[in-house]
Formats: sequence, C-alpha cells, structure tokens
Amino acid sequence: MMVLPSDAVVLLTGGTGFLGRYCLARLGQEPCEVHAVNRPGSGPEFGRIVWHSADLTVAEEAFALVRRVRPTHLLHSAWIAAPGRFWTDPDNIDWLQGGIALLRGFGEVGGQRFVGVGTCAEYAWDSEVLCEDYTPIRPSTLYGKAKAAMAAAVEAYSANYSFSFAWARLFQPYGPGDAPERLVSLVIDALRANRRVALTRGAQVRDFIFAPDVADLLVRLLADDRSGAFNVGTGKGVPVRTVVELLADSFGRRDLLNFGALQEKEGEPDGLVADMSKVSRHFAWSPKFSLEAGLAQTVKYALNPEQIL
Amino acid sequence: MMVLPSDAVVLLTGGTGFLGRYCLARLGQEPCEVHAVNRPGSGPEFGRIVWHSADLTVAEEAFALVRRVRPTHLLHSAWIAAPGRFWTDPDNIDWLQGGIALLRGFGEVGGQRFVGVGTCAEYAWDSEVLCEDYTPIRPSTLYGKAKAAMAAAVEAYSANYSFSFAWARLFQPYGPGDAPERLVSLVIDALRANRRVALTRGAQVRDFIFAPDVADLLVRLLADDRSGAFNVGTGKGVPVRTVVELLADSFGRRDLLNFGALQEKEGEPDGLVADMSKVSRHFAWSPKFSLEAGLAQTVKYALNPEQIL
Repeated sequence: MMVLPSDAVVLLTGGTGFLGRYCLARLGQEPCEVHAVNRPGSGPEFGRIVWHSADLTVAEEAFALVRRVRPTHLLHSAWIAAPGRFWTDPDNIDWLQGGIALLRGFGEVGGQRFVGVGTCAEYAWDSEVLCEDYTPIRPSTLYGKAKAAMAAAVEAYSANYSFSFAWARLFQPYGPGDAPERLVSLVIDALRANRRVALTRGAQVRDFIFAPDVADLLVRLLADDRSGAFNVGTGKGVPVRTVVELLADSFGRRDLLNFGALQEKEGEPDGLVADMSKVSRHFAWSPKFSLEAGLAQTVKYALNPEQIL
Repeated sequence: MMVLPSDAVVLLTGGTGFLGRYCLARLGQEPCEVHAVNRPGSGPEFGRIVWHSADLTVAEEAFALVRRVRPTHLLHSAWIAAPGRFWTDPDNIDWLQGGIALLRGFGEVGGQRFVGVGTCAEYAWDSEVLCEDYTPIRPSTLYGKAKAAMAAAVEAYSANYSFSFAWARLFQPYGPGDAPERLVSLVIDALRANRRVALTRGAQVRDFIFAPDVADLLVRLLADDRSGAFNVGTGKGVPVRTVVELLADSFGRRDLLNFGALQEKEGEPDGLVADMSKVSRHFAWSPKFSLEAGLAQTVKYALNPEQIL
C-alpha cells in the first residue's frame, strides 16, 4: 500500500543496517524519490535509490548531506547498534551530535516530516507495559539517555522550524539479516549445528516485532503529520523462553535448549511490552506477522539465505 | 560560607545577565579561580574574575572556550532571556546547540561538575506543585522544549564522560537589576511615577525567589556531586496580586493598582510552585530572604540605584 505522496523527497539514514534495509525495501514500494546514506567507500547500490556517502557521526557531514538532498521527509534510523556494546559505547554521543546537525539542516531546508527511531530503553523500567505519554522517561543506560536527548531535541527543533515529527520507540525487533550475536540468531545457529544452547531461565517478557512490520509502521509514521512519540511493538508480551521454544520446535530439537544455564543480566527488567493503543487509535495499524510466522520466516532464511530485499 | 575547594576552576556563563551577576558575586566569596564570559567587545571587568570573549550560541566558540579554560566546574546560566520574546525565539535553538558544544568540551577536558539552569516551563503544567522526579516533563513552549532537550543532553554527556551534574529548574526569580519589562520592575516604575498600573486579576500563584537566593543555591549545587534535577524556588506559592500589593504598600499607594484591567495570557497556568523537599533533604538549604525582605530590597535599589554587586 502506498502512503507517501509522489512528490515527496525521502531521505533514509541507516539504510545499510538491519532495520534500515527493511525500510529501504518498504520505501521502494512508494511512488516518491528515495535517498539513502552509506559510510564513505561502502554499501550497496540497488534499485532506484539515490545513494550518498556521509559519516553521520560527524556533525558537518550530516548537516551538509541534508542541505544537499533537501528532503521533505527524513527517516532517521541510523545509530550505533553493535550488539552488547551499544548500551555504553561513546559513539552514542557522536550519533546524538550528528542527529542534532541533521535536525538543524532539515529545518533550514524547509523539511516537513521527521521520523526518528528511539527505544524502549528511554522509559523508566518500573512497569511491564510502557506507554508513550504516561510512562516516565528515565533511561538508565548511555544508549537510552542519548536517544532520550535526541527525542527532546527533535521536539525542540520541530517547534522552532515547524516541521512535524514522530519519535518511534522501538521494542524487540527480529528477522532475517539480524546480527549473529543476537538471541534469535544465536539460537538458530546452535540448532542448525545440533549444538546445545546455554540460556537463562527465559522468564523475561519482551515485545518481539518482525522487522518488516517495524519498517511498515515507520513508513506509516513518515506519511503522517501527527507529532509525538509512538511505540513500535506488537503490544503482546512473550516470555523469551517461548520464542526459543518456537525456534527449537521448527527443528524438532527442544532437547538442545539448556534453560537456566546462564544467569540473568543484572538490571535486566522482567517485562518490557509496548502499549500500542495510541498507534492503533491513530493509525488503525497492527502487525501483519504473528510471532510464529515471523520466526518461521527467520528460520527459513537462515537455512536458505537468499536476497530477501 | 565557602563551599567550593580552592583548587576548583569555575567557568560561569551568562555572568553579564540578571542572575549571572548574582552568581558572579556569590562566586566571588569562594576561594577558587573564577572565569566568566561576555560577548565579544562588551561586558564588565571587575574583581579577580578572568573574563573571556565568546559567542556561546556558536558551537565552535563554545567548544573552544571550554578547551581553553579547562574548568573543573561549569555553571551554565547563559541563555536567551529577553522578556516576552524568549518563549518563542529561534535563538533558543542556538543556545541548545552551543550548550551541547560546551558539554562536549567539558567532557573532553575532564570536567567534574556541570550545573545547568533549566526552567519550570519544562514541566507539564497540569498540577500546581511541581516535583523534580514525579511531575512529567511536557514543555509546551519552544523555550521549555529547548531547555528540556538541553537537560536530556546533559544527562547523556554526563553518563558518557563521567562528570556529575545538577539541572536547576528555576521558578520566578526577581530582584534588583531585573529587566524593566518584567512584572516587579514595571510595577515599581509605575508606582514611583504615581502612574496607575493596568494588571490582570493577579490570581496566578507563582513561586517568587530573590536573585541572591538563586545564586546561593546554584553555587551550592555546583559544590556538590549528586546528579539530577533540582528545583530552584522557595516552595511557597504566592498570588501575583500579593506581590503587587506588597510593592504598592511600600509606596502607600494601593490605589494605583488597577486589578482586572488586563486579560490573563492564554495558556498561562493557575499555579506554578516548586516542590523543594528534594533540595532541602539533600542540601539542608532554604532561602535566606522572605518575600517581604526581597521586595523591600528591590524597591530600595530602584529608588536609589548603586553598585550592588
């Protein structure tokens, strides 16, 4: 379904990343001009995407890029995402600084709509169900703090330059192409190799959302003009144990799962589930993929990788 | 009372502004090195303050200044404050950008303690008493949004560079030297000239704090190492009408007060009062001046201006 006007000029950042590639694929179904960014000297070139080279952690490069492309719509998904390391990496500060330069450039060229990718780690993790306008913002990690600072900057720049914005707080994405260090990838890898997997008890409840659904919602947010924060999840909490068991079942090998072999990480909350009532109220949006369907596709791709985009 | 160590290197921004001058006077009682900033080609030079010229709305100048001074303690009070205009002025964005450059520079030179001046306009104005860690942050003005973005950036940079911070949310300061367009100044001016003053009904409840008390609390926050937001008020709400009547009484001229002649400004909240329990719990601090004493000093100064700093 096309949602963007044909005269829109979309700039996507992070288009070479896990979720960015799904956004690029989703934007490919739209009738408008699409620009994407890769780091100097790298990255794919395909379709009718116009690629630009820029290091967006450098404020001057980020600013110059936006001035050059003059986007009407900016979907800013780029950020440090290196598994494990991203929670505390000083790069978070460079992404914040670069992001603010993007905002300024976007305002100066008369941009209309900004969508930024935030995180459920911006919220206070005292309750299981997290709601955009009621749950306090109280990040406990550098990653969460830098994203929360970016969100606050988006709101300030939006007020100054009169563009509208959505701040998309992302829960637990998964899907083909995710980093090998992430839970779903690790478990599939072990199951394929008939290796036993050491796991925690898996009681943590998370809101797993399939990457194409993430991309679909982000593009829907990009096509709208309501300003505010919006959760990007399914609204359904699932124990990590269930996800792992579903994966094992597709190999018929629950016996390889060694639950309780690992200690839960300190400070890890019991439950993180998106309250999706605001999104469904405003956008009549719901995910297309059930957890079972999304995991099945992820396994299928792992067993038989092919160009999925 | 001295609170800062003698080997501290303090950098004060905004030292030529209304509150900044009180901070400078208060810092003058401390045993440490004090640096202050004025815009190129302007500003006072007095005492043992080391003055630097820089336009802090220009990120490069802000960054270079901190790299040059290498402060251990940074009290950032500079921001656009032009009465009326400051709520919506695009300069807010330049101050945000410059402020973030200060943070980066401060982190890079190994700064220890950052105190930034925020505002009660960062809070949601749904309730009368506003509390640092319970009242939601929901600014409705560009000024409030830019300050809230700065606060969020302070928290992120603090986490990355391991300096501690206080974010001081200021309520209603007043005192000698305030801008002539501000309520207390306007009323005193009219009373001195035996002019009738057009006023709203004056039912709005505000938390008025005398400028030297503001400076005293800011310097106390600067000397501490607890991180977080702290209100800067008295904890006592007073109707604006009471303030105006106290001023009129010192001239014996309540008859000049024309309450109800002006309409309340749209969107103006009924009450804005600081919950000061966090500050008194942590710092055993309370204001030295009663409202009566502070207003009396303000009137005295207006009638007989002299060097008060």
